[in-house]
Amino acid sequence: MNATANTPVNRQWILQRRPQGAVSREDFAFVEGRVPEIGDGDVLVRSLYFGYDASQRIWLTDDGGYMKPIMPGEPMRCMGIGQVTDSRNPDYKSGDLVEGFMSWQDYAVVRADGPMPLRHLPKADFPLSWNLGVFGVGGLTAYFGVTDGLKVKDGDTVVISAATGATGSLACQIARLHGAKTVIGIAGGADKCNWVVENTGCDACVDYKSADWTNRLAELAPNGVDAYFDNVGGDMLDEMFLLMAPKGRILICGAMSQGYTGVKVQGPTNYMRICTHQLTVQGILLFNYAQQIPQAAQQIGQWVMEGKLKVSENLQEGFEKAPDLLPTMFTGKDPGKLVLRIADPQ
Amino acid sequence: MNATANTPVNRQWILQRRPQGAVSREDFAFVEGRVPEIGDGDVLVRSLYFGYDASQRIWLTDDGGYMKPIMPGEPMRCMGIGQVTDSRNPDYKSGDLVEGFMSWQDYAVVRADGPMPLRHLPKADFPLSWNLGVFGVGGLTAYFGVTDGLKVKDGDTVVISAATGATGSLACQIARLHGAKTVIGIAGGADKCNWVVENTGCDACVDYKSADWTNRLAELAPNGVDAYFDNVGGDMLDEMFLLMAPKGRILICGAMSQGYTGVKVQGPTNYMRICTHQLTVQGILLFNYAQQIPQAAQQIGQWVMEGKLKVSENLQEGFEKAPDLLPTMFTGKDPGKLVLRIADPQ
Repeated sequence: MNATANTPVNRQWILQRRPQGAVSREDFAFVEGRVPEIGDGDVLVRSLYFGYDASQRIWLTDDGGYMKPIMPGEPMRCMGIGQVTDSRNPDYKSGDLVEGFMSWQDYAVVRADGPMPLRHLPKADFPLSWNLGVFGVGGLTAYFGVTDGLKVKDGDTVVISAATGATGSLACQIARLHGAKTVIGIAGGADKCNWVVENTGCDACVDYKSADWTNRLAELAPNGVDAYFDNVGGDMLDEMFLLMAPKGRILICGAMSQGYTGVKVQGPTNYMRICTHQLTVQGILLFNYAQQIPQAAQQIGQWVMEGKLKVSENLQEGFEKAPDLLPTMFTGKDPGKLVLRIADPQ
Repeated sequence: MNATANTPVNRQWILQRRPQGAVSREDFAFVEGRVPEIGDGDVLVRSLYFGYDASQRIWLTDDGGYMKPIMPGEPMRCMGIGQVTDSRNPDYKSGDLVEGFMSWQDYAVVRADGPMPLRHLPKADFPLSWNLGVFGVGGLTAYFGVTDGLKVKDGDTVVISAATGATGSLACQIARLHGAKTVIGIAGGADKCNWVVENTGCDACVDYKSADWTNRLAELAPNGVDAYFDNVGGDMLDEMFLLMAPKGRILICGAMSQGYTGVKVQGPTNYMRICTHQLTVQGILLFNYAQQIPQAAQQIGQWVMEGKLKVSENLQEGFEKAPDLLPTMFTGKDPGKLVLRIADPQ
């Protein structure tokens, strides 16, 4: 009994044209194909969950950012959770639950020599899908971003944008756990701001859709902002430069406001504050923390077990929804990590 | 015999209107006044040399950047060298040679509690004016920028813009002294590029006025740029983001291309490379290195004595030229530190 016999059809969402503006469902085509054959060293993985990350939009650009661009004709890449159904790689056996780079198809051949090899999922009391959120890219990015990138320390005033997001909502909590005195979220609209204060332990959350949000933030951080975790870019980043304390640190983690719309990205016109206030602006790329990931995951797990880190998930159902959900990453979605369930493990 | 009796007239160049675009001579008015009286704790300083720094243009903006803005009616602020002619401060006595914040006038009252107190000049075999250049803001900024900001280390490929400038020409040499394998200058025009290669030990200098300068730089740095010392901003900074190696470091030291022309500053549209390449972008503010300045000056002096650091000065003469020279900081000038000689010490 093998996977091919069980499921002769391999549903796929293929990139059919490179999006020039906002990504839309029409950029993808649904096709049904055969379950692929695997070669020496390969692993065949059945998809269980697809995760959504703003960086997927970067992978769709001409140059792909920090990864190979996704080419038309290829299934859309994502972070996912799957189950090994066939393996010609001694490190993986049928039945193993794994997390890593996958794609929008029921079955994918995954080579073990990719930029981040498939990670075996530990047996745990957590829902399997959390391996895409708090134990996945979002949680690890929040962890390394706060602890290493921003080096949040006792007494800091920390601001986090997209504070309802998978990364932002965890970064708020981790900043506090790492000693921040004041943690301020930024989100869009009163409902989201209320959610942030209730669910992430922020002292306050500023609504960037209100005209005077910068004044409000300046009141909340009268001595300036020591550390800013930027998931948004655009005008928000530009204004934040003016709100930083001397020697403040900014982490560039995303630019959801830009959405890679084909229009030239808006650069921060107030960047000279880097010079006049001796700011440090840094990026974060999870690849570079590969060695420290097990230790970070252990710390995160401990916080979750102790109830110090609250996990928020926006769980959706059904393979057919895969392309519809991607634009909602940029247009606003329910709080928490967006995950699409495809199938259950066997 | 005191200064007042000797020189009853105090020539001054006063800011008469805040420049909205490029700074021009017409922004200043020549007046003759009386030599000011000093109060308790004050020092009266006779001007000997005025230094020119791009940051003077920042001080002329509404918010002044990292210092109090210069207000219309006040003499233009500068870094200068002077001689104490009267003192009611126990730390200074008549005849002392000092360097620090001064202004475009023959005699200035200097308070010792400013952001950087007047520095006593050591007796040295160097020309007095070098205390504004290699031993002044430019030299110290180059030193701390290369060693601490960019943390240049063995094997690095380093790029420095405005490589004919007071800071840039020294940064090129200090990068090499600090172990850089490849040092590449950027300057405008073939003559300046030749000057850079001949005078700063750069392996090459790229002419940003040539259409293919980015291709040329990419050829010279096939593995990307590890450290970029930015004195220019604008398009040049934007393009440099695309030329950085993963984990590269950028130092924001100035934005001479912008000239604070009243038009909104051009932000770097390629700043998302900070994220996708995990770059670090930092500023440098000399105030924050006050404690380390003596040690740095000693190291710089040793390099100069040993012939390892070549000093370039563009020495001009005459108080009347003070405002004419300021715009040349942004429109191009002869290589080296621009200094205006006002008088000789007595």
